[in-house]
Amino acid sequence: MNPRTPLCPPVDPARLRAVAQARVLYADTDKMGIVYHASYLRYMELGRVEFIRASGMPYTEMEKLGLALPLTDVAVQYLAPARYDDLLSIEVGLSLLTRVRVHFDYRFVVHDRRGQQEESPLAILTAQSRHACVRVAEGRPERLPAEVYEVLGNCYTPSQ
Amino acid sequence: MNPRTPLCPPVDPARLRAVAQARVLYADTDKMGIVYHASYLRYMELGRVEFIRASGMPYTEMEKLGLALPLTDVAVQYLAPARYDDLLSIEVGLSLLTRVRVHFDYRFVVHDRRGQQEESPLAILTAQSRHACVRVAEGRPERLPAEVYEVLGNCYTPSQ
Amino acid sequence: MNPRTPLCPPVDPARLRAVAQARVLYADTDKMGIVYHASYLRYMELGRVEFIRASGMPYTEMEKLGLALPLTDVAVQYLAPARYDDLLSIEVGLSLLTRVRVHFDYRFVVHDRRGQQEESPLAILTAQSRHACVRVAEGRPERLPAEVYEVLGNCYTPSQ
Amino acid sequence: MNPRTPLCPPVDPARLRAVAQARVLYADTDKMGIVYHASYLRYMELGRVEFIRASGMPYTEMEKLGLALPLTDVAVQYLAPARYDDLLSIEVGLSLLTRVRVHFDYRFVVHDRRGQQEESPLAILTAQSRHACVRVAEGRPERLPAEVYEVLGNCYTPSQ
Repeated sequence: MNPRTPLCPPVDPARLRAVAQARVLYADTDKMGIVYHASYLRYMELGRVEFIRASGMPYTEMEKLGLALPLTDVAVQYLAPARYDDLLSIEVGLSLLTRVRVHFDYRFVVHDRRGQQEESPLAILTAQSRHACVRVAEGRPERLPAEVYEVLGNCYTPSQ
Repeated sequence: MNPRTPLCPPVDPARLRAVAQARVLYADTDKMGIVYHASYLRYMELGRVEFIRASGMPYTEMEKLGLALPLTDVAVQYLAPARYDDLLSIEVGLSLLTRVRVHFDYRFVVHDRRGQQEESPLAILTAQSRHACVRVAEGRPERLPAEVYEVLGNCYTPSQ
Repeated sequence: MNPRTPLCPPVDPARLRAVAQARVLYADTDKMGIVYHASYLRYMELGRVEFIRASGMPYTEMEKLGLALPLTDVAVQYLAPARYDDLLSIEVGLSLLTRVRVHFDYRFVVHDRRGQQEESPLAILTAQSRHACVRVAEGRPERLPAEVYEVLGNCYTPSQ
Repeated sequence: MNPRTPLCPPVDPARLRAVAQARVLYADTDKMGIVYHASYLRYMELGRVEFIRASGMPYTEMEKLGLALPLTDVAVQYLAPARYDDLLSIEVGLSLLTRVRVHFDYRFVVHDRRGQQEESPLAILTAQSRHACVRVAEGRPERLPAEVYEVLGNCYTPSQ
């Protein structure tokens, strides 16, 4: 594998929709003065849960079925640093949906910064998280129930 | 209440014992270049759990009894900033133990910093956390079981 | 000090205003199934920074003056657990403002939970954080500049 | 790209050395009762910084040269859940070292759990983080200085 190939697969902008915004806090930054790299994973969860809510079935409904969608894999490509008080626009899309796999893609964008006009939106990162469906009580993988598969399917266009 | 009186009650150094050490990471810092104030609460948990383990009954044993010790109150007084790569010495003691209340006191100390010799140990913060015993399944308060009370009691000297 | 007296001074509801909302994430919870006690400090920062922004001078403006408002003290009283997917309403007020001290009070409220109608808003916690003004470059305390003092003063009613 | 191919490249066990241990706290867990996926990134930093320290040049020395090693990419494959009070053994190795790129590989292992004897060490995750060298003041990429490159090179065996 070429070491210049990013670990995160390319994200298709056509699949993404802006689902949440988040303001960068001191809590998110580190002594380099920028957002600490792990802080973004929390915001990825925020985006994912709002994407699922917008699809019509809040994640809490899945939980009532005794199911969860834990991560099996994640990859992030850091494109530019986000800074304190930036307003992050969190874009999320589905890049794969089968009865046993769900892949979410992400892009974080800063639209403008006070004072220092960004001419165009600035992409901060792209990422992908992969999830399996598990029955929580037994911790065992399980196929996505039909109603969840259908609801998420409304937000998914398979590649040609 | 006098606004100069710290929110955290005075900590009695005679009750404290050093129970854990922790190295400050980038993850703990913020853009001021020092440890973010909330990061210390995680290290307080580390100290508390090692204090309980050293008393002879690991917290996981309490969990097997169906019990937990959630916080009801916490107060922290920040005395000096800790910095990246500092090695924090975490001191913990019991300042109150009854069948329904457990109060832990904390002091964080930096013993030396590379290069810039601290002449004497530097106290970073003092804190107190207060805990109730609850039965997890029902979320109801419960008296500390005799065996837990006894084990913790070995580490506790009531004030005269 | 009576061990039943909470570490956090009473919060005056008349001083509080709702300044932000936050949705509880998995990231905020712990294995007890409720919000981890330290996660609230991050949300207190969110409330504080939105309170300051609403007063007319974003915190980033203070930073441009070379100043910061680090915590000297914090105390939290935990009244009831918040749960996953709860929408927290974050209320903030000033309980003290002098040229060298700023005290913020907080109350977190859950207005309703899906399915399980709360009859009335549920207070999750009250808290107080105390801040000094420091010149960042030297790390030295400094009096609040007149313009900051004035702007914050518009949001502050001294007790009689 | 085959969706079954993990996002994290295979980790070569021969390159790894155990550099740190960490005890799982409540702070690290979520309501599924296991370690929250983002908590591991903090422990990856702990492993990385101890790996660099063991190579003979603490990261703070690099900082004194005005340099930093921010992440450009990260990928994690989650193999099994870690649980509260697990003692994680953090293994780190270099999988690429050039004058402009540093790739760290990670494996987290649990050696035994109280009560429930693991017959053999349990791998929790593998991961890779990629770093560029930047001059902090300007935020510009820079070649690794010879002394850093040499010190890290002592811990690096290029693939044949």
